[in-house]
Amino acid sequence: MIKVSIIGATGYTGSELLRYLIPHQEVELAHLTSRSHVNTEVDVYYPFLKGSIDKQFTELEPEKLFNDSDVVFICLPHGHSMELAAAASAYDVKVIDLGADFRLKNIDVYEQTYKVEQAAPNLLKDFVYGLPEKYRADIKTAKYIANPGCFVTSALLGLLPAVNNALVDEQSIIIDSKTGVSGAGRSASVDKLLAELMSNFKAYNPLGHRHIPEIEQELNSSSENAVQVQFTPHLIPTERGIFSTIYATVKDGVTETDIIESYQQAYQDEPFVQILNEGELPQMKHVAGTNNCQIAVQLDERTNRLIVLSIIDNLGKGAAGQAVQNMNIMFGLPEKSGLNTIAMMP
Amino acid sequence: MIKVSIIGATGYTGSELLRYLIPHQEVELAHLTSRSHVNTEVDVYYPFLKGSIDKQFTELEPEKLFNDSDVVFICLPHGHSMELAAAASAYDVKVIDLGADFRLKNIDVYEQTYKVEQAAPNLLKDFVYGLPEKYRADIKTAKYIANPGCFVTSALLGLLPAVNNALVDEQSIIIDSKTGVSGAGRSASVDKLLAELMSNFKAYNPLGHRHIPEIEQELNSSSENAVQVQFTPHLIPTERGIFSTIYATVKDGVTETDIIESYQQAYQDEPFVQILNEGELPQMKHVAGTNNCQIAVQLDERTNRLIVLSIIDNLGKGAAGQAVQNMNIMFGLPEKSGLNTIAMMP
Amino acid sequence: MIKVSIIGATGYTGSELLRYLIPHQEVELAHLTSRSHVNTEVDVYYPFLKGSIDKQFTELEPEKLFNDSDVVFICLPHGHSMELAAAASAYDVKVIDLGADFRLKNIDVYEQTYKVEQAAPNLLKDFVYGLPEKYRADIKTAKYIANPGCFVTSALLGLLPAVNNALVDEQSIIIDSKTGVSGAGRSASVDKLLAELMSNFKAYNPLGHRHIPEIEQELNSSSENAVQVQFTPHLIPTERGIFSTIYATVKDGVTETDIIESYQQAYQDEPFVQILNEGELPQMKHVAGTNNCQIAVQLDERTNRLIVLSIIDNLGKGAAGQAVQNMNIMFGLPEKSGLNTIAMMP
Amino acid sequence: MIKVSIIGATGYTGSELLRYLIPHQEVELAHLTSRSHVNTEVDVYYPFLKGSIDKQFTELEPEKLFNDSDVVFICLPHGHSMELAAAASAYDVKVIDLGADFRLKNIDVYEQTYKVEQAAPNLLKDFVYGLPEKYRADIKTAKYIANPGCFVTSALLGLLPAVNNALVDEQSIIIDSKTGVSGAGRSASVDKLLAELMSNFKAYNPLGHRHIPEIEQELNSSSENAVQVQFTPHLIPTERGIFSTIYATVKDGVTETDIIESYQQAYQDEPFVQILNEGELPQMKHVAGTNNCQIAVQLDERTNRLIVLSIIDNLGKGAAGQAVQNMNIMFGLPEKSGLNTIAMMP
Repeated sequence: MIKVSIIGATGYTGSELLRYLIPHQEVELAHLTSRSHVNTEVDVYYPFLKGSIDKQFTELEPEKLFNDSDVVFICLPHGHSMELAAAASAYDVKVIDLGADFRLKNIDVYEQTYKVEQAAPNLLKDFVYGLPEKYRADIKTAKYIANPGCFVTSALLGLLPAVNNALVDEQSIIIDSKTGVSGAGRSASVDKLLAELMSNFKAYNPLGHRHIPEIEQELNSSSENAVQVQFTPHLIPTERGIFSTIYATVKDGVTETDIIESYQQAYQDEPFVQILNEGELPQMKHVAGTNNCQIAVQLDERTNRLIVLSIIDNLGKGAAGQAVQNMNIMFGLPEKSGLNTIAMMP
Repeated sequence: MIKVSIIGATGYTGSELLRYLIPHQEVELAHLTSRSHVNTEVDVYYPFLKGSIDKQFTELEPEKLFNDSDVVFICLPHGHSMELAAAASAYDVKVIDLGADFRLKNIDVYEQTYKVEQAAPNLLKDFVYGLPEKYRADIKTAKYIANPGCFVTSALLGLLPAVNNALVDEQSIIIDSKTGVSGAGRSASVDKLLAELMSNFKAYNPLGHRHIPEIEQELNSSSENAVQVQFTPHLIPTERGIFSTIYATVKDGVTETDIIESYQQAYQDEPFVQILNEGELPQMKHVAGTNNCQIAVQLDERTNRLIVLSIIDNLGKGAAGQAVQNMNIMFGLPEKSGLNTIAMMP
Repeated sequence: MIKVSIIGATGYTGSELLRYLIPHQEVELAHLTSRSHVNTEVDVYYPFLKGSIDKQFTELEPEKLFNDSDVVFICLPHGHSMELAAAASAYDVKVIDLGADFRLKNIDVYEQTYKVEQAAPNLLKDFVYGLPEKYRADIKTAKYIANPGCFVTSALLGLLPAVNNALVDEQSIIIDSKTGVSGAGRSASVDKLLAELMSNFKAYNPLGHRHIPEIEQELNSSSENAVQVQFTPHLIPTERGIFSTIYATVKDGVTETDIIESYQQAYQDEPFVQILNEGELPQMKHVAGTNNCQIAVQLDERTNRLIVLSIIDNLGKGAAGQAVQNMNIMFGLPEKSGLNTIAMMP
Repeated sequence: MIKVSIIGATGYTGSELLRYLIPHQEVELAHLTSRSHVNTEVDVYYPFLKGSIDKQFTELEPEKLFNDSDVVFICLPHGHSMELAAAASAYDVKVIDLGADFRLKNIDVYEQTYKVEQAAPNLLKDFVYGLPEKYRADIKTAKYIANPGCFVTSALLGLLPAVNNALVDEQSIIIDSKTGVSGAGRSASVDKLLAELMSNFKAYNPLGHRHIPEIEQELNSSSENAVQVQFTPHLIPTERGIFSTIYATVKDGVTETDIIESYQQAYQDEPFVQILNEGELPQMKHVAGTNNCQIAVQLDERTNRLIVLSIIDNLGKGAAGQAVQNMNIMFGLPEKSGLNTIAMMP
């Protein structure tokens, strides 16, 4: 049994990790830390876990926690993982950081984007970017994983085959993403109230979302030519899910067959990425509560643009699900262990 | 033109008053006060009012405000109206309080229910309970109006004809109410987030909601026998509306005809209450955004119970709409002035 | 491995059965029948099952199906199970009927309620009513199960301890139920469109819902005194879930301790029923996608009424989940096999 | 008083017209036709109109209807307006067609797009395209109006100033639109059920939506260079509203000031178009139930792209509201007559 702890277990990514980890047959929960709910029964705080768990939230005691755990998931706001990751280096424990602190390899870009100092720069090289579809081999042997951002995951899975194979103009990429509101976290604010959001729809940060440098970093490392993306996130009045509509101009001579074969080859052995058949269009709810990504690929011959529709659950493949997938890979387990949930329809 | 001010204009009842008052052809807005947004343009704070209003929120200066206004709507949490109402007594200004401070005639009951002292007990006798269907004559000449609670309005309109005419066992009344979430106000809290409430449903305060004494006060003042009610409010995952399902055992000898005639007579001249035809059932959205109340009345001969379905908009007939209706009555205007909005379907 | 078939697999109960049965480690799917989608790939019809299933819908061939199956779930509208159940009697196959044809023991009541003839009256005695909390012992050895109605399940689990122990006036029971819209099935109709239902709320069949005789049958068989219930179902603008608010007058001398102990004893060994702690209130979403039932019990000393809040997923404990629980019991499996899903929050 | 009739009054555009026309002080309703609900009381079919209307639906009798009306709104599926428009030519009646039959000036394009014959080609020149912001002068004297498509209106209002002033590369335009579900009409189908759409999001017709030629027709007639657009519509799980996110590459030398001034000048006298201030972002619900269009304009200097966010209500400025605005212009009324509704927030 793998002993697992979660640092910061009272947010949405923390609870989603529990939803995947509790039924996981190779996992034993060690510590679930919380600053504000120490000693509270987990199933009192999360009544939907009644009957599934018998533990309390505990205070974060790093030494004890690292000693008692084989792997630690860090679910803290950016800026809070660096010190913990540094502390973990002295222990025989793997770390999967669901925050943003170690995703950006360029320290200047990180500091400008997140407005905090990179306090553990020497650890950056030890962190593997946790997108199994690109870095599976490195993940297998990693001690540290930087789990990708939610929008980033949907964008990369939708674009990597096209960029990798130089099928599209690298400067023409536009990613129009829509997400359920859990991506904004569980803190109270007026603009996240049901009364404000329901029957509503809006964009946020249309020019400067923090996921832009992360998307560009990973596309550039897969491309010979420089990639620049336009990215606009929007809020759907629902709980979870990401739907990315991606546009890119196809290079001269590239055919629809080239495109479809690139996507099929890229993902043919992937357990969680499904390329839809011609004529099928993805629906966001079809992957809710799962680690799946469903992708439709179309060439618009009229405009010569590639249109990719890429859907994930922001808390699943966009956060907790992908983190558990990374854990499975790191510990040599079948990748679907604990991740064979099926979406709820209706 | 009637000069109108709103004290506390940045909450949901404040904005709903604006929605009714801006197109009201007999109304001119004087002061719209706010503690936290002084000098902010109203249409910057409320972008849905762009093109409809050109004013700023102002600080509350009671003397200036009372001098400049013919009528003042107070939209403050309970406990904050008493001092203001007392101050207004020296001015030629009418006051419509949308809070709870002057609804309960019994000071002990008020203080136990709301956990604050009744600081203006001598004003209580001057406040008319603002339910036009019961107190229209008094409202016409009132200086002070205590605007009824939202659940209370839906319950009273659904029950008064039956209780008035002693058609039902006064101890058997059960009111199972469901409301949209705007009734809980615009303050930020985790339990009002869309991510928490959507696809969800729950009861709150099933035994001790503050509207119980208000419902019983008004039913008792219309009944020879003592009335006691069971009242359970629930939260619907939507923005607005109240749907009350009311159960009461019918007294011996009372027929369905007795019941239906009582309701039809009670409301035949009411501009905002509609008794549905036999076989019709109300839908909450049919009154959203309006001052209407739609009521279906049925006798279940199998169980000998009266079932009343009574729907209003909690912000309309349950708050701002009814307040404007009261204003119209107080100033001798046609009651529908400014209140002829039609619900949005779909 | 238990060979399982589903007759009528393209409705909501059919797809929910697949959601539970596909990951069930003791189950192998035999036939999934459909009238309208014969030979269609299941994961083309249900794209949310992509990656989880590799089968086609087939035409219903009873002889072949009964020979190939250890158990058959029938998911057909009422009136269509009787002939099939009769045909199954000649085969070594168990039958779990999710429809209403064999729930009502009284033939006259069935025929009046459902307006069809009971065409297999001699089978009625062989059908066990599939509520494990009441009939577990009989279910173990049954060949035929009549799976309970969804509203009925939430009402019975909320009332059986009180009625069984004669704690409440048997004529005073009022059940005010609210359900998500999947309970109305997957057929197309204007009144189930999102544009009609969203932000809306309504009652339906307030006096004559078909689940009333089923509730009364099962309460009466657990009570010495005659039970009569008032039952009003309502539609919540969401996909799934049932929230029943139940009122009953407590008999003289019954204390809150009596009540709580009755409920705790009744369900202490039940794997899917959870009595909430004092002060906890259930939220419908906390059981969505699961076979759980959460119940809060309160005595209102002011009115001397018992208030029970009972929540289930109409497709889970109200249909497919309970059907799988019955299958597990019939085949001697642990009751939680395939049913350890955790609700999605948010 | 203007005598107004509606042909096809039982769909969503028909009911929305009633919501605007009933309180319109210059309008008197003549005939409201329906094929399926002849002689039904309008407020029985539309209970949300109870207390607002006292009329019945009637059969369509063209001669009588054209004689009795000053203006007729046609709310029929495409293909059904041509014969009616031809018949109206003999009468002194104006016609506003909310369908698509006369929007496309090129007959071949119309017939390929809508798969029906243009049966009244000689009337095409008499139809004015009913976008007041472009064709107000022509609308004033028109007998026939082709009311624009809903997506088209949001796209054109978001793009016309940029295209008119040649600020953007005419081949680079991408319109990513999201709409509430009422745009798909009121007919029953499984894919429009609440249980299928809620918590969901999807694209439809990503390459071939019928509004593409209409958008291109109107942009080309405002541009010296050929315009080609990419257009992808998506479905938001809510009742109404359109949110278009528009991308276009800015031409060399064009500055942010050029852009903002173009938009401000274009709409400075428009009663229903509001350009948001720098830093403000539109929210779809802020125009629900109104004839307003709110637009935010931003230049992304990093990518050299113009990002326009353009919101309308698909049933308001996208259909019935714009139709009433056209009527007001045709009859010399103030444009805001009957259109001064304020959106509901929350």
